Parts: sequence; C-alpha cells; structure tokens
Amino acid sequence: MANIIEPRILKGFRDFLPGAEIERRSLVERIEASFRLYGFVPIDTPALEYAEILLGKGGGETEKQIYRFIDHGGRDVALRFDLTVPFARFVAEHRETLPLPFKRYHIAKVWRGENTQRGRYREFTQCDFDIVGSESPAVDFEILLVMRNTLKAIGAGDVTIRMNHRGLFNRLITRLNLRDKAADILRTVDKLAKAGRDATAVSLEELTGGGKAAEILRFIEARGSFEETLDTIAEAAGGEGPESERLRLIRSFMLDMGIADSFVLDPSITRGLDYYTGIVFETFLTAMPEIGSVCSGGRYDDLAGLYSREKLTGVGSSLGLDRLIAALESLGKAGGRSTYVKAAIACVDEAAGGAYQALADRFRERGIPCEVFPEAKKLTQQFILAEKKGAHWVIVPGEKPSESPLTLRELKTRRDRTDLSFEEAAAILSR
Amino acid sequence: MANIIEPRILKGFRDFLPGAEIERRSLVERIEASFRLYGFVPIDTPALEYAEILLGKGGGETEKQIYRFIDHGGRDVALRFDLTVPFARFVAEHRETLPLPFKRYHIAKVWRGENTQRGRYREFTQCDFDIVGSESPAVDFEILLVMRNTLKAIGAGDVTIRMNHRGLFNRLITRLNLRDKAADILRTVDKLAKAGRDATAVSLEELTGGGKAAEILRFIEARGSFEETLDTIAEAAGGEGPESERLRLIRSFMLDMGIADSFVLDPSITRGLDYYTGIVFETFLTAMPEIGSVCSGGRYDDLAGLYSREKLTGVGSSLGLDRLIAALESLGKAGGRSTYVKAAIACVDEAAGGAYQALADRFRERGIPCEVFPEAKKLTQQFILAEKKGAHWVIVPGEKPSESPLTLRELKTRRDRTDLSFEEAAAILSR
Repeated sequence: MANIIEPRILKGFRDFLPGAEIERRSLVERIEASFRLYGFVPIDTPALEYAEILLGKGGGETEKQIYRFIDHGGRDVALRFDLTVPFARFVAEHRETLPLPFKRYHIAKVWRGENTQRGRYREFTQCDFDIVGSESPAVDFEILLVMRNTLKAIGAGDVTIRMNHRGLFNRLITRLNLRDKAADILRTVDKLAKAGRDATAVSLEELTGGGKAAEILRFIEARGSFEETLDTIAEAAGGEGPESERLRLIRSFMLDMGIADSFVLDPSITRGLDYYTGIVFETFLTAMPEIGSVCSGGRYDDLAGLYSREKLTGVGSSLGLDRLIAALESLGKAGGRSTYVKAAIACVDEAAGGAYQALADRFRERGIPCEVFPEAKKLTQQFILAEKKGAHWVIVPGEKPSESPLTLRELKTRRDRTDLSFEEAAAILSR
Repeated sequence: MANIIEPRILKGFRDFLPGAEIERRSLVERIEASFRLYGFVPIDTPALEYAEILLGKGGGETEKQIYRFIDHGGRDVALRFDLTVPFARFVAEHRETLPLPFKRYHIAKVWRGENTQRGRYREFTQCDFDIVGSESPAVDFEILLVMRNTLKAIGAGDVTIRMNHRGLFNRLITRLNLRDKAADILRTVDKLAKAGRDATAVSLEELTGGGKAAEILRFIEARGSFEETLDTIAEAAGGEGPESERLRLIRSFMLDMGIADSFVLDPSITRGLDYYTGIVFETFLTAMPEIGSVCSGGRYDDLAGLYSREKLTGVGSSLGLDRLIAALESLGKAGGRSTYVKAAIACVDEAAGGAYQALADRFRERGIPCEVFPEAKKLTQQFILAEKKGAHWVIVPGEKPSESPLTLRELKTRRDRTDLSFEEAAAILSR
C-alpha cells in the first residue's frame, strides 16, 4: 500500500474553515463598504518583492523575522512583512498616475517568522488605509472619522480614540535640551502602560537626569477635557504653535459634527515608530477596552523617502482584524454562520435533479441562497445534513417540483408548514 | 544626499492600481455572490506549506516552477502553486468536521516561477470550486449549471460548455487493448486542437499501430446532436454502460431546466490531467470562443489519496480570472471605474471641514459614496481633480453647508444645477 503523507500545516499558520472564513469575509466586506463610502480605493501589490526593497536600510528585528530566499533567477527576494513598505514603493513607482490626495486601502496577507509562543501567527491579514499628498488638518480629521464610523458600521459599538501630536512632544523635548535622546524617550514613554508609572519614571530619570523626568511625566500625564489638556501641554511645550493650532482646528471639526465625545487628547500616546511626525492615535472599544487598541496610526512627513527624492506626506491607520474578530465574538456581534444558504431542497427522486435545480433557481432569483441535495436519502438524514450545514429550512418538494405544493421544514423547531405555493414559501424564506 | 533605492518589482509580478483592482474585485464579488446562491462556502489555506505536502510524490515540471526554500526553523517550505493540492490536504486533515457533500470555493493567489516570455505571470489568482463526497450525477450537473449561470451573472453572456466522459474513452482504449498506453494517448488527444488532425493521426498511429489510430480518431471526431454523439461513442466504447447512462441522466436534467442549448458533447475533450475519471468539461464564451476555455474541470475518484487512506470522490472546476477580465474588457462589459465615489464635495472654506463631512455623511447614509476635498483650491482645480479621480459630480456647498442651497456640477457636461435642497441633490446623485 502506498505511503501516506501526514496532512499538516506549518506552525504559526492556519486553515480557515467555512465558519471562520465567512466571519472574516463578512467583516472585511463591511469594512470595505465603509472605506468606499469615503472615497478610498483598493490597490494590491505582490506578495514577493526584492529583499532590498522590503528591508530598505535594513533593520535588526525585521531582518530576523522576514521570509527571505534566493529565487530561480538568483534574485534575493522576500515575502512582504507589512503593507506600509510595499505602499511606499508603490507610491514612489506610480507617483505620476496617482491623483493627490490619494486615498487607498489595502487588505492583504503578510508574513513574519515571529515567535509563535506569544500567540502570534506567522501569516496574518493587515488592513491599512492612508491618505497621501495632503498636509491639511481636514485629512487628519477624515482618518479619525473613518476609524470611528467604520467601527460603528461593523457593529463594534462606541469607541474612544486617544490621540496626541508628536510635534508638541518634540517641542517639549527640544525645550528640555533632550533632542539627541528623543528616540529613547519616545520608546520609554510608549511602554508606560506596560511598564507602569514608577518603572517609567526611573527609566526616564536615568535617561535624562536633572529632574527632567518629572517634566516629561507631567506632560504625558496631563488630564482633563480635550481643551484643558491641550492648554496644559501646549504651555509645557513652550506656548501656542502650529501643532496646537492644528489640534484646535481638528477639535472644532469634531464639535461641528457632534462627535467630540469619541475623542480624548492623551499626551501619553506616542506610537513607538520613528516615522510619525504629526498626530498619532489609538482606538479602544468602549465595551472592551482591555483588548487594547484595535486601530492605530498617525501622520508622517515622508512616506517614500527610501525610493524617491520627492517628499510625500500623509496620514494613515491600520485596523487589527484578528483582534476585532475576537472582540466581536466576545460581544456576541459575530455572525456565527457556517453557510450562506437559507434552505436546502430535499431530494425525493433522483431523476428529478433538473426540476429541483429549476425550483431552486426561482428562489435564487429572489436572492434566497438555496442548496439542492443530490441523493434521495431518508428525509430525517437530509434534515440532519441541512442542520449540520447551518441552513434553517428544508424545502420538501412535491411529486412535480414546479407545480405541486411545497412543505417547509423549520429545522430549529422541527415544525412543518405544508401545502405552500412557491410564493408563500418564498415569502417565509425572505423574512 | 542619501542613496535612493530604485522602486521596482520582480519580473512576472504586478501592482494593481485602483482601476485594475476595482475591476478584479468587482468580478470576484459577483462570482462569489453566484457561488453563495448555490450553497458553496469559502475556505482559505496558508500561502506557505511544507514542500513535501505541496510536491507530493514529486513532479518534474512542478518542482522546477515552485518557490521553495528553507525557513528559519530549518523547514523545507514552498509557496502554493495551485489550490487543488492544498484543498486535498485540507480535506484529509479536516475530514471529520466537513458535512458531505462539501461544497467549497477558494479564490486566492498562487505562485509559479514560470517562463514569463509566454505572457504568464508568476503570481496570479485562482478561483476553484468543488463538490466532494458525492458520486451523484446531480452533483456533476450542479457544477455545470453553476459554471453556466455564474458566467451569465457576471455579464460574460452565453456560453458553450463542451463536455465528455473519461470513462467512455477508457472503455474504448480497453476494447482496443491499449490500456498500458492510455496516458500517452490522452496526452496526444488533448493536444489535437494545437497539433492539428494530421499530426495527431501520425502520433497516434506511431503510438498504437495496426490501424487503431483510425478508431480513436473516429471516436474523438464523432459529431452531431448531444444524443447522436452519445449513441456513437457509447457504441464505439462497446455498448451502453454506467458512463453513458450517467450522461443520459445529466442530459435529461439539462432538458428539464431548458438549458440544453448551452452544452455540447465533444469526445475530443479529455483534459490532460491523469486524476480525472468521470465527466470533463471546458467552457467557451459564445462572443469570444477564440480566447479558449474560461472554466474547466472534471470529476475525480480520489482527491486526497496522498494524505488519506479514505477515498473522497468529487467534481470541480476552475475559473480563469485573468482571461475573463481580458474578455470582459474586449466585450465592453468591464466597469472601467477608477473609484467608487459618485461625488466630491468641493472645499470653499478650510475651517468648514467638519460641516463638509457632516454633509457628506448625509449622502453616505443614503448609500451615495462621497469624498470631501480638504484644500480650498480654485474650483476649476477641484473639478479637474474630481474628474481625474473618476467622480461624475462635484457638490459645491453654500456658506452654511448644512442649510444653504447646493450647486451640483456635472463634470462630463460642465453644467451646473444650482439652488438645490439636500433632498434634490441626493435624488440626482442616486440616479
């Protein structure tokens, strides 16, 4: 007997069975519908690129995690590990043909050979949306608005978007004569929630000395209404300036739309990544703040600097799909469907396959997804199969499927509705 | 000045700019909507798998084309080169949880290091749908029906599905005592259209000798109505049998549904792949037969034999997305859209960003995708930008965007409709 190869998949990778895949697609479809209403358009880029393009000036952590190899043609290639780097390359390459401001979304798989012990996957879907080519505060505001309204549209409920402006923090650091330590300070502050206040205070004092840690902590711990906090941190940063004025304008947009309650100015939000230069933000579900930010990003000065001498500013955000799916499941807002089908037509006579499909097509024309069972097994067996597949109804056709009255079996209650015309059956299934 | 990395992509790979990506997604969305109406459910599998799983018992051509490498953990891995092998592994692995017959579709990227000179891409999307776990002719018929109706639903028009039964051909070969040469004969016959009749006759005679080539040619060249052809080839194969009876039953289903005209029995259709055992088929657009088959497949005996001792029969088909997109474009049936947006709201006053988004949200709530321009440039510049983006209308708001009458600029005709209420504007944009 031939040897059998054990069917197995790589650690950190997963199959999506129909229930999980339907859930994921349903979420992605609703997210896309929302993005499209705001004028965002989709793009796609290759999964495989030159390693040189993806690694740019090289980077320790990234280099260790990337799937990289030499292809048949001797090229040094790698699987993309995020959607930001391919987008930067894309914008540099197609700059001439893109009308600015260019609003794109990209929902696609990325690969990282991460340590799976932390519950991370090595293949996962990212969902990024950006507006490039405009410095306008209206564009910052639009990203915030799209985040808020998209999360509402997918049933995640109310959100709190915690935001800040990197420029104000930079002015504070400059005033304290700490510019050369800015990156280290940012990284330390970014870990405040994880490390705790005391440990952060010690780390900051070690980094900066001379009591400057206290001033930094005062800044990042400023609390109050959006306006009060803004007054406090603007003063700490050395007075009003373009950054605080931009935040005041964005705030007026929120007030004009009556959505001000969704936003908090939180000076402890810095986002670790070096390339943010303007607003930065993280988004928390009111019903489940403990799962962390489900949508984060910020404004950057120079998206494609590695590949182009032309500066392209922009603002962008990334939705955490896996985290959102987990949250929606916990909140009972996930569909829990394992099929799109509402009803299955039972097979009573195997010679009537054409007539059953003709009957099914009439339901399908009304937008009612309808499956036809091929084998004339016992009706009870067909009911069990329909239930396993996730259908709610079985249509039991009569002797002449196109003319005879129909019986509808409701699987949950095990009740039959008999002697129905096609129209009556279609009306029940459309509910 | 820093060195710039030239932005470029790998040969055989491509970016999808918004116009192309919107086209592709629109097609995929319509295909999925059709599959779902028939009870097919989506699955997904990893892009990367153990090379052993993907290569199975190894295979010359495949092995040369596959992207294969050693990962960080020393595993021999490869990118999937089709969706059939991962599906076989998937079915063997999850057999217990899948309700049979299991109807799945899978639309995803695959990678092959093919010679790009033949106009082939190294990264492309496959679209497979299969029904496994039933031997019923009703299931063969359903795959044929879904092909026909899905191609109609996406606007490809009428189709001719050319079909055959591998078993009848096998019976002919057995009767001629040529079983040991069956694979070579199949391959030769499969190339008939390319090689021409005379060359095929010579090849067959070399293979078989003794005038048997003439009998094979008489079989594959049988022509007439579906029924006449079936009579001819059944007789050539040695008389009626389970294969011809199955074809007669499937034919009766077609007649019962009134769709018999879409199907031709063509004994020259064999599909080269060894693993088909029952019906095989290819699909041609009536409006563009010259582009070749856009949807092909067949019935197999044993999908997952490499990974499981349990036999799983099924029938499946694969839609050629790239070919279909090219065909729809030639037929003028492609959307040609570069945005989802119908209208852009012009920016007259940069301090009114919130009010503009509030106005836009009212249109969006009506299902009208609406973009807000962020910068108060000259109106003519904003009209040009909206046109570049593919919008048809620009909404010019009044002094108080929520109350003042609106002006609608139709970009194609350059005509303004002035003094409109929100309701009047929404009615025009909804058309």
